[in-house]
Amino acid sequence: MQGPRACVFCRVVSGELPSYKVYEDDWVLGILDIRPVGRGHTLVIPKRHFENILDIEEDLMLHIYRVARKVAESQKRALNPAGIGVAQNNGAAAGQIIFHFHTHVIPKWSPDQDRHEPAAGELEEVAEMIRKNMVV
Amino acid sequence: MQGPRACVFCRVVSGELPSYKVYEDDWVLGILDIRPVGRGHTLVIPKRHFENILDIEEDLMLHIYRVARKVAESQKRALNPAGIGVAQNNGAAAGQIIFHFHTHVIPKWSPDQDRHEPAAGELEEVAEMIRKNMVV
Repeated sequence: MQGPRACVFCRVVSGELPSYKVYEDDWVLGILDIRPVGRGHTLVIPKRHFENILDIEEDLMLHIYRVARKVAESQKRALNPAGIGVAQNNGAAAGQIIFHFHTHVIPKWSPDQDRHEPAAGELEEVAEMIRKNMVV
Repeated sequence: MQGPRACVFCRVVSGELPSYKVYEDDWVLGILDIRPVGRGHTLVIPKRHFENILDIEEDLMLHIYRVARKVAESQKRALNPAGIGVAQNNGAAAGQIIFHFHTHVIPKWSPDQDRHEPAAGELEEVAEMIRKNMVV
């Protein structure tokens, strides 16, 4: 378990680490996963540090899902995937790697879709496409 | 794509098909997945028919996640899994099988966890454990 100071996502929120932002408001950030499972794979994270679904404040979690839906709509417009997966992992046993609550929104072209290696410049380009197609 | 009349979950909501209920209110139903990926695998579904994250009404989707969180808390108390996965698939390309919006809440003991074959009577027993541990 990591304290907020060492947490990668807390450092993204503070600006100490760079990110590919697709959305931002006072409470949450939408950023591209830098190890995407599909083109446009986005994470919606709270700015405050919570570890998982058991400790996050309810209203904040609901706001994350409100934004996740906007991200899905934007991905549909920007990338026209065949499907979209929404997933949120709690605990290493569920595949959680960074212990700061986050919801994945993943454009899908196939149910067997595995790790997608982004080409040079792709993350910047895709972030801008999703950002531009977001209706807030 | 299925119309509401042929939809398996619409038939569960109407009572035409049986289910293992862990939660019910005016808007949503929490039922066990009869082909669970883990012991206690629960689905939270809206009573009205929506296909996916792109067509469901926002308030209803947020209520589903409010209930999904209560289900996760109850699973933690009832079954003490090491982790909990929350997932919602949109489109066959994302693994959606029943085209009526649903959110999976899956107790996890390992990230590689695969299909879990429930023993005789297990679904009844687990549904009751989750139902009894739900704080509404």
